[in-house]
Amino acid sequence: MKQILMAEPNISEGRNLDLVQQIVAAVRAVPGVTVADYSSDAAHNRSVISFLGEPNAVLAGAKALALKTYELIDMAHQHGEHPRQGAIDVCAFIPIRNVTSAEAVSIAKQFGKFVGELGVPVYFYEDAATRPERTSLPDLRKGEYEGLPAKLADPKWAPDEGPAVFNPRTGALVTGSRFPLIAFNANLRTTDLTIAQNIAKAVRHISGGFRYVRGLGFPLEEKGMVQVSMNLLNYTKTPIHRVLEAIRSEAARYGVTVAETEFIGPVPMDAVQEIVRFYLQCHDFKSEQVLEMALLED
Amino acid sequence: MKQILMAEPNISEGRNLDLVQQIVAAVRAVPGVTVADYSSDAAHNRSVISFLGEPNAVLAGAKALALKTYELIDMAHQHGEHPRQGAIDVCAFIPIRNVTSAEAVSIAKQFGKFVGELGVPVYFYEDAATRPERTSLPDLRKGEYEGLPAKLADPKWAPDEGPAVFNPRTGALVTGSRFPLIAFNANLRTTDLTIAQNIAKAVRHISGGFRYVRGLGFPLEEKGMVQVSMNLLNYTKTPIHRVLEAIRSEAARYGVTVAETEFIGPVPMDAVQEIVRFYLQCHDFKSEQVLEMALLED
Repeated sequence: MKQILMAEPNISEGRNLDLVQQIVAAVRAVPGVTVADYSSDAAHNRSVISFLGEPNAVLAGAKALALKTYELIDMAHQHGEHPRQGAIDVCAFIPIRNVTSAEAVSIAKQFGKFVGELGVPVYFYEDAATRPERTSLPDLRKGEYEGLPAKLADPKWAPDEGPAVFNPRTGALVTGSRFPLIAFNANLRTTDLTIAQNIAKAVRHISGGFRYVRGLGFPLEEKGMVQVSMNLLNYTKTPIHRVLEAIRSEAARYGVTVAETEFIGPVPMDAVQEIVRFYLQCHDFKSEQVLEMALLED
Repeated sequence: MKQILMAEPNISEGRNLDLVQQIVAAVRAVPGVTVADYSSDAAHNRSVISFLGEPNAVLAGAKALALKTYELIDMAHQHGEHPRQGAIDVCAFIPIRNVTSAEAVSIAKQFGKFVGELGVPVYFYEDAATRPERTSLPDLRKGEYEGLPAKLADPKWAPDEGPAVFNPRTGALVTGSRFPLIAFNANLRTTDLTIAQNIAKAVRHISGGFRYVRGLGFPLEEKGMVQVSMNLLNYTKTPIHRVLEAIRSEAARYGVTVAETEFIGPVPMDAVQEIVRFYLQCHDFKSEQVLEMALLED
């Protein structure tokens, strides 16, 4: 069974697309790495790159990305709307297929060590965090690039790898591992925003809903609908169908129906497998039965 | 967009597994070909091999299979329960992804020409048939191997490629193209076989049901259930969900429910895409959104 790990680095350049493409090309040149997607945001001055492969190939891809990014991006001259504290602001390693969380954490730690040895302060977050207060990216990024000299002088913020010394060119790196996040929206046949907001409250963790759901209600004026917009943080423990069926049930109390749903961005095959199992009652369905998946094993 | 074609040759050897493995190895040795599966049946004295790849790679794989099969299998000494008239009895080329039926037919015709030039009489069937009475494999195979000398002497059965001469070692080949077939079963929470038989009648083409469904009712004694066993011959025109919803609806009239469903063998990703679109109302869902599919494009 082939293993698939994904890396999702966010780099602090979203305007000079030639430079972004040079960084992407450096990743692509690594054998066994597939760049699945990349996109740049000029206002945020930030690009997100997704690449996939077996764990060691992805580690090699991340190292190639680090060398090229630190060569090309100088944080001393970087500004944008998005909070950031490094040229590679954050790099998540995400288990996709036949990879355990522990294996993904191990790759993140090896990447952090490599970047630390380049003279960059490195913090581990999420599943790779070394202490509870370092779990969340927003917490780790407080004070941003401009606050790094003071932060690094504070023993409480001693980096997990690399020197406790401000590197003006690179800033700091946050890296670690997290589960794949699925962005899933349900659009409702009503213009009543309070209904979307009530349903978002019903399904999201913070207000009593499913543990691995974040959600908000939004108007969709151009469609004459409202949207329950969600992030599903762990599709194995809070599967897509369970959330959708709860939305359908809650919408029914208002005499409202779901008009359509959408995924923003990618979905792992194992999440699709669970959709087929639930809706077809096909309890033993395996994604390996999908013909195209045989090609991945070769 | 990568193209994926599948070849499914049936060879007339299911007892000497060493010989079958030599034939499979000859296919595997062709660059760009992935052997997805193969299985042998001793009573039938027959093996089915499935391999995938881009159309030209699959054609090369089929040619390698033909050379090795004609080297190793001598039909003059072959017997088994399964009807057959050649060492390669039939070879179907099946469009899986981004391949049109016309392209698959063209590959089948090229393969038939190649085999014909080896001195083997060749008939084209299904979507590659040259006349209506040559569409169906059972019709083409009437008389079997033993009837070939008389058949080839009859101008009505002049082969589409190769000589109208009996080749005792190879027999004749039937090749062509057909749509992928999905074997799908629904098991019902009842032991009343007539319910499964009635539902099979309701959904299958021959008795008034969906155009691309064949179906029968069977008892499943060990489970205390009955089964609606189906072949879905064109999942784009008669999709899986429509058949299953009809089964659920017909079962309800007897107060019976579907306990489980199963796929026997492989399912193309595009069929899974339609399941997700229907049950999640995710109208724009694309199988390319499945993360692992990005690896196929590389």
